[in-house]
Amino acid sequence: MAIVPGDVTVNPDQTTTDLEIGSHHLAIPILAAAMDAVVSPSFAVKMHQAGGLGVMNLEGLQTRYDDPEERLALISQAPKEEATAILQKLYSAPIRDELVGKRIQEMKGAGATCAVSVTPQSAKRMAPAAVEAGADIIVVQSTVTTARHISKSYHGLVFSELLDMISVPVIVGNCVTYSTALELMETGIDGILVGVGPGAACTTREVVGVGVPQVTATLDCAAAREEYFNRTGKYVAVITDGGIRTGGDLCKAIVAGADGVMIGTPFAQTQEAPGKGFNWGMATPHAALPRGTRINVGVRGTLEQVLFGPTSLTDGTQNLVGALKACMGMCGAFSIRDLHRAEMIVAPAIQTEGKVFQMAGRL
Amino acid sequence: MAIVPGDVTVNPDQTTTDLEIGSHHLAIPILAAAMDAVVSPSFAVKMHQAGGLGVMNLEGLQTRYDDPEERLALISQAPKEEATAILQKLYSAPIRDELVGKRIQEMKGAGATCAVSVTPQSAKRMAPAAVEAGADIIVVQSTVTTARHISKSYHGLVFSELLDMISVPVIVGNCVTYSTALELMETGIDGILVGVGPGAACTTREVVGVGVPQVTATLDCAAAREEYFNRTGKYVAVITDGGIRTGGDLCKAIVAGADGVMIGTPFAQTQEAPGKGFNWGMATPHAALPRGTRINVGVRGTLEQVLFGPTSLTDGTQNLVGALKACMGMCGAFSIRDLHRAEMIVAPAIQTEGKVFQMAGRL
Amino acid sequence: MAIVPGDVTVNPDQTTTDLEIGSHHLAIPILAAAMDAVVSPSFAVKMHQAGGLGVMNLEGLQTRYDDPEERLALISQAPKEEATAILQKLYSAPIRDELVGKRIQEMKGAGATCAVSVTPQSAKRMAPAAVEAGADIIVVQSTVTTARHISKSYHGLVFSELLDMISVPVIVGNCVTYSTALELMETGIDGILVGVGPGAACTTREVVGVGVPQVTATLDCAAAREEYFNRTGKYVAVITDGGIRTGGDLCKAIVAGADGVMIGTPFAQTQEAPGKGFNWGMATPHAALPRGTRINVGVRGTLEQVLFGPTSLTDGTQNLVGALKACMGMCGAFSIRDLHRAEMIVAPAIQTEGKVFQMAGRL
Amino acid sequence: MAIVPGDVTVNPDQTTTDLEIGSHHLAIPILAAAMDAVVSPSFAVKMHQAGGLGVMNLEGLQTRYDDPEERLALISQAPKEEATAILQKLYSAPIRDELVGKRIQEMKGAGATCAVSVTPQSAKRMAPAAVEAGADIIVVQSTVTTARHISKSYHGLVFSELLDMISVPVIVGNCVTYSTALELMETGIDGILVGVGPGAACTTREVVGVGVPQVTATLDCAAAREEYFNRTGKYVAVITDGGIRTGGDLCKAIVAGADGVMIGTPFAQTQEAPGKGFNWGMATPHAALPRGTRINVGVRGTLEQVLFGPTSLTDGTQNLVGALKACMGMCGAFSIRDLHRAEMIVAPAIQTEGKVFQMAGRL
Repeated sequence: MAIVPGDVTVNPDQTTTDLEIGSHHLAIPILAAAMDAVVSPSFAVKMHQAGGLGVMNLEGLQTRYDDPEERLALISQAPKEEATAILQKLYSAPIRDELVGKRIQEMKGAGATCAVSVTPQSAKRMAPAAVEAGADIIVVQSTVTTARHISKSYHGLVFSELLDMISVPVIVGNCVTYSTALELMETGIDGILVGVGPGAACTTREVVGVGVPQVTATLDCAAAREEYFNRTGKYVAVITDGGIRTGGDLCKAIVAGADGVMIGTPFAQTQEAPGKGFNWGMATPHAALPRGTRINVGVRGTLEQVLFGPTSLTDGTQNLVGALKACMGMCGAFSIRDLHRAEMIVAPAIQTEGKVFQMAGRL
Repeated sequence: MAIVPGDVTVNPDQTTTDLEIGSHHLAIPILAAAMDAVVSPSFAVKMHQAGGLGVMNLEGLQTRYDDPEERLALISQAPKEEATAILQKLYSAPIRDELVGKRIQEMKGAGATCAVSVTPQSAKRMAPAAVEAGADIIVVQSTVTTARHISKSYHGLVFSELLDMISVPVIVGNCVTYSTALELMETGIDGILVGVGPGAACTTREVVGVGVPQVTATLDCAAAREEYFNRTGKYVAVITDGGIRTGGDLCKAIVAGADGVMIGTPFAQTQEAPGKGFNWGMATPHAALPRGTRINVGVRGTLEQVLFGPTSLTDGTQNLVGALKACMGMCGAFSIRDLHRAEMIVAPAIQTEGKVFQMAGRL
Repeated sequence: MAIVPGDVTVNPDQTTTDLEIGSHHLAIPILAAAMDAVVSPSFAVKMHQAGGLGVMNLEGLQTRYDDPEERLALISQAPKEEATAILQKLYSAPIRDELVGKRIQEMKGAGATCAVSVTPQSAKRMAPAAVEAGADIIVVQSTVTTARHISKSYHGLVFSELLDMISVPVIVGNCVTYSTALELMETGIDGILVGVGPGAACTTREVVGVGVPQVTATLDCAAAREEYFNRTGKYVAVITDGGIRTGGDLCKAIVAGADGVMIGTPFAQTQEAPGKGFNWGMATPHAALPRGTRINVGVRGTLEQVLFGPTSLTDGTQNLVGALKACMGMCGAFSIRDLHRAEMIVAPAIQTEGKVFQMAGRL
Repeated sequence: MAIVPGDVTVNPDQTTTDLEIGSHHLAIPILAAAMDAVVSPSFAVKMHQAGGLGVMNLEGLQTRYDDPEERLALISQAPKEEATAILQKLYSAPIRDELVGKRIQEMKGAGATCAVSVTPQSAKRMAPAAVEAGADIIVVQSTVTTARHISKSYHGLVFSELLDMISVPVIVGNCVTYSTALELMETGIDGILVGVGPGAACTTREVVGVGVPQVTATLDCAAAREEYFNRTGKYVAVITDGGIRTGGDLCKAIVAGADGVMIGTPFAQTQEAPGKGFNWGMATPHAALPRGTRINVGVRGTLEQVLFGPTSLTDGTQNLVGALKACMGMCGAFSIRDLHRAEMIVAPAIQTEGKVFQMAGRL
């Protein structure tokens, strides 16, 4: 995929990149993923200061251990062949309610907007407690989330019931189709996460065969947002989650219709990240069917460099916001919603020697 | 290819994965391939105990030698460049009728359902004897099998004549097209094997150029099953055979319309397999035109792990049944036939770095 | 591309593979390419004995040197970086008329059908002399040959004038389109060579960007043959030339409509070939714009093995005729012209691990 | 992509390759790119002598330093990991007006047509001064240039105003779409540069996701040229810029509709190039968001060899003009505009072993 420049160009200085999630306003449309190797309370504070949002996983190591840094160190030091087994063991410890409040306070105390994620199974139990403890945004996330879930072992989560219980914006995911996105929006939520399978630390495609390429998924979910907006006047944020590694990826997600993006691995590669150069998906520690793997992502720079540069790297992995603004300039877009109207074509992934003279496909 | 999650999700605990072949019932829709490196009598017993079915090759080493283990050891110890020649030599020994009965008794004596495979050329001679000796299911298999075969040197096999001679369910293959599948079903058989050329140990595509990708072949043969079912009320099992390495592959075969799958190499990689870390296709030992190769597949775990986990591997090669149930959950499918109705899209094989932002094609 | 098995299968013993070129009859539809590394007079004799046809290049080393073997040895011993320059030098020696007759006599004296190739520029001068010396078939070949060539420096070859001058069958090439093939057939020739750019020893695609994939080219030229046959009753042999490495390639060329194939590199790899493990295209020695390269193809077996086996190689490079017959069997084809009616689909080149579950495209 | 041979062929001797840019006539349709590693004043003189045109970057090292050779040496000697930072530093020195005139005089004094490039931001300031100093052709170039640019920090360049200020032909770029090309032509310019992102030394695709494959971009911009020509009678030169490495690439650009090409890396690889075996894109030194990288391209031959041969390389990188003439011959084209009418098909990039038997797509 590649973005086609516009007939009018704009100076990047004149572009704005705001993202609204319910009543919350972000200056940059970037969320840090609810992964233990990416978002600790202190990382969330830094994301807030940068204008974005860090989402902390309420069912990860931070709420299972008093000393998550020690456990994170165990993971980063584990030999490659033992990593999954160690993750499986560490994540079998129970979640402790008092740590939920403690972590939220660490974020709130530093002045940050506090966003936390829970799974659908525990949403009704944990989300109200988190809001009580001060959480500003609740993210309900599993590999595939729908408005209708059938289960014997627990009462399937009814999102409208959850929304009645809490008074803060709710983001739900992940989903990849028009109909599921629309059904989720109709429950009254404020944002959806788009993407099943694309993350670098995720192997859902190999393990269960399920997944949809991000451009297609974003196009479909954005179409649901437009339909729902036209019908109700409510604009639900569409956030593409997974697989974004470069400024080019970010720009393509926005052109495909995303209002923002959720990023994991590129943040796991910062000096500030708790993963110390490693990342793993939240489905990785599953006891019987792990769908992910610990990957050595390395430490490549600071959070500041990833978001705003300056950089001497030319592969697109740093200065994501600068790249977004440059792209908006080339497409004549003053705002994110202007950029939704840019044209995108099917093109060879990245042109390599001897393969430049190819055709594009039109959408 | 990738599977699209459903609008409704189901708890995996509530799914069932049954497969019916004639009057036989399997709890898991998985057959072990009729390859000498995969199914020995003892392996077939273990497959039965796990809820699946192992098919023993009646024209392989087990019925040519009193001591097949010794011959299998010769193969696994052969240097790479001599392997095909050694296979050609070992398979030139005659088949001994008394060993047919002996092997069948080894399986029956341990309480297992006994399935054995024969080629079309020898079906009329060997199948009745096998049934007499206790075989429960007959598999008639060659690279390409049709209901109409023309030959001077032997009377082409007429399946309806074969079915008159024996009273047990018959599975026939391999085939890849709607019309051939329908013609085979019209002879009265109970199952078809789908796939020409896809197996890891098979080189039919290189040698004779013949083959059909498994998704296409399964879609076509499943369409024939529906047509035949609508016309006659008889439901013939469609079993995708070849190329299934991961849970994702298995799930895609089912979504494409398969009622079950036949698997070779992943079972050859178990500790229980007779191949001791090697596998080879049954066309490999052909004296003049070998179409296959001995491949070093390694030993990676137990049969239990491949089928049910638990596992610490995250590449999808273990816990195939758990993966199938997880996929069914994401697609809102309670049964295999529900899963046939899930949506599948054309997607880049597995998303690799820098290639995530691609489009899907709709079927 | 892949071939779809038929609804009827045939025993390979009952298939025939004849090719007619004018009044000449070949038992196998395979020509050895007019390349100096492939066809010497003695190699042509062996091809004749095997039932095929070797075409000797009348403007190569055989007619420039008394002792071509010595010059061939220089080429095979040249360091990689000097090979093209040495070829350019060796091919700048003049063609000697007396050697033309001598080489033809070497073939005729051994009882072989004698086919020789000339370029369009020298056809009128050399072809009549070659026929006089005993040549049975004339091949007029250049990278791209049309019925209409415009030149100031020599009078463009008018094929009908050439045909008036000689009384033996004429094969012309190479061409790749319907209209050019039809125009060439209308001049009265007996065969066309199909293919621009596909050979392993050819770099026309890189150098001038010109080329057409062989399946497309063969489909188009075969359609011209059918049109011409329907109109005139004359059946012109369509011979796919270049890029055939395996039995699978050969079979696909025939299914696409070829009556036969011309093969270079696989024969250059035989013990009998004059190239001693090397091959180079006939455009390689061009003084200013070489379009080809000497490649180290190795010596892999005997001509007998390449054509008829037996073989222990499983990659499709040996027993080409056995493979063709096996393919005909799977497609229910008794003859080459039956095999033209088999179905072919667009499929991933060769299925590799993790990429099996793909779709085919229909033609 | 691949070019289809014509039904008529022409002797290459009879072809002409002229390119007109306003009142200037070039014997070969090849421009050397405005990159500091490619065009110094002395290289521009050699391009002129060869019949082409070298474009010197007026905002690069040549106009920032008295001794550009010394600075170029620093770049070529820099360790890989420091190259971008050194480039960023060197390009932060100010442009000196007196050096603009000096460099132009170096070209004019040697009798060459003098073409210089400026960015849109500085065009109104620098272009008139350059013309005054003797420049014959002005190139206004940035990554993406449109006829309408919106900026607060400087008054967006209005091309018609620029054209009123100077009396020499103006080439503008880069653009990739029909509508932008048409709008640019309507301002009265004489040539457009086509291509965003394809150059070997450019990473715009990774960094901001923007780019269009060259065949598509050239087809679209050439269609705009035809529309504008039909409407006004003025023929604007369409020059494909970026990604051309071989004769095959050049020929495909012309068949797609280009009147000429601009080439960077292949000239950077000549002995005469100022880059001494390295090349870097002009967006590489950007302080905050470098979009490019210094690449080690090596020194492979002389400018004469790249343009006219003779050569012993067979990969298409030398004798570009010979290759163009050979291609014109195979397509029956006497002129560049004849070659625009040749047919091109979608084909696998370069055929590799085992992948020859594929289909082409029709445009």
